[in-house]
Amino acid sequence: MEIVKTIEEVRTTVKKWKIEGKSVGFVPTMGYLHQGHQSLIKRACQENEKVVVSIFVNPTQFGPNEDFSSYPRDLDRDSEVCSIAGADLIFHPETEEMYDSFACTYVNVDGLTDKLCGKSRPTHFRGVCTVVSKMFLIVNPDRAYFGQKDAQQLAVIKRMVRDLNFDIEIVGCPIIREEDGLAKSSRNTYLSVEEREAATVLNRALTQGRVLISEGEKSVDKVKNLIQRVIEAEPLARIDYIEVVDFETIEPISLLEGTVLVAVASYIGKTRLIDNFILKI
Amino acid sequence: MEIVKTIEEVRTTVKKWKIEGKSVGFVPTMGYLHQGHQSLIKRACQENEKVVVSIFVNPTQFGPNEDFSSYPRDLDRDSEVCSIAGADLIFHPETEEMYDSFACTYVNVDGLTDKLCGKSRPTHFRGVCTVVSKMFLIVNPDRAYFGQKDAQQLAVIKRMVRDLNFDIEIVGCPIIREEDGLAKSSRNTYLSVEEREAATVLNRALTQGRVLISEGEKSVDKVKNLIQRVIEAEPLARIDYIEVVDFETIEPISLLEGTVLVAVASYIGKTRLIDNFILKI
Repeated sequence: MEIVKTIEEVRTTVKKWKIEGKSVGFVPTMGYLHQGHQSLIKRACQENEKVVVSIFVNPTQFGPNEDFSSYPRDLDRDSEVCSIAGADLIFHPETEEMYDSFACTYVNVDGLTDKLCGKSRPTHFRGVCTVVSKMFLIVNPDRAYFGQKDAQQLAVIKRMVRDLNFDIEIVGCPIIREEDGLAKSSRNTYLSVEEREAATVLNRALTQGRVLISEGEKSVDKVKNLIQRVIEAEPLARIDYIEVVDFETIEPISLLEGTVLVAVASYIGKTRLIDNFILKI
Repeated sequence: MEIVKTIEEVRTTVKKWKIEGKSVGFVPTMGYLHQGHQSLIKRACQENEKVVVSIFVNPTQFGPNEDFSSYPRDLDRDSEVCSIAGADLIFHPETEEMYDSFACTYVNVDGLTDKLCGKSRPTHFRGVCTVVSKMFLIVNPDRAYFGQKDAQQLAVIKRMVRDLNFDIEIVGCPIIREEDGLAKSSRNTYLSVEEREAATVLNRALTQGRVLISEGEKSVDKVKNLIQRVIEAEPLARIDYIEVVDFETIEPISLLEGTVLVAVASYIGKTRLIDNFILKI
């Protein structure tokens, strides 16, 4: 496995693979890889002959008061995870390699991005869509892998790929959880012991909502209320949003039908965590 | 030469060429091709083994009161022009092939696009950048050719390609003019005989400005004033803008130095025409 820092090196390597007729899978990440990322890389390795992982903490998707500078970084451990999972190439650029000082081009997916996480993070998805577009154009993969934990991101990227005609298959992969149900996230590392315990409330609340739906409940409000009550019972939790939306359009729905995304975001102490489930009803 | 209407057909053809190791040039157009387009296609044929021309009157780059529906169209003549110039493939999609009804993704080049033509056409460059990105991702060319007549567009596309890491060389080509100096444009067809005569004022005014600079004038204001006086002497002309900017950043300058774009837009009757020159000082 090779680790490169320049766009030129990625292009050279991938072009060589393409000439050899090899398929290329791509897993874009911000590093500090956990088993969620690992599952994406493994899936990419199963479905492609070569796999590229990018590790880049992208400044443009963080808001001014968010955790860009404190976001955890550990390239040595990440390299090991990538290598064990079977990746062929890590792209680990400096910020200056990705953005020159005059950079002023942005990719916006209007409509899907002003809801859910986009409400409290107004420039987040613009940053995500722009850097993912750049990565797609640098890596030129056949398939790209995204975790369903960032469900809105997955929906936004799918829409972007369709709208801009990227010739790339977007593969969404299931959420990987800790044994007690907490969704794996690089941000879990911010949690104190007490907060770590409290954080399980998100999955517990969602699970209760899912059970209610499986018992036949059709009212979105009732499901949201149940989830809210469960989370509010946890003193360390402060809800950002609980939303039930159509998974493709991210539009709010009032009756539970179609492919539904039930998503929550909540602060646990100072750490903002997200979790969700997607259900075909 | 083949004419196709679907993205799939373009992809299949270009992929075949790429496997054969052939270089691909691309000329995006809105059709109604004149000698300006022809010169782009010929240049593309000189520098590439295969050449694709797109003919698509892109609705998203027209404002609500602009000439989308009346924009001239003539595929038969266009095919002939392309064929004679040496093109290998025309991509002529319907609007529905390019935009599905949920399309909501836009590429924005901030900063360069709110000046000059962007001032009176606020969503124009968003439409241009989005459709050009789509075309680039569909055609996957090695080089793409743009006329210098749309100088701001050329600067914007160059910036976009750099910012989003398109692996495409952007080639700017000189303005082609009628014998009396009027820049070739599909919109010249709107002009009455009287207006056609009056329209030569743009090139005459710019030429006088250019002479003044070549005589050593360093003041932007003096050059702009001269151009303004010449155009205002023509009763059928109504100036939209006269601007002197840095060609790369499209930022206004006050002293004539560096690579300078001197650009004018003016209505001649109801038809809005543009013209410019670029000068290294």
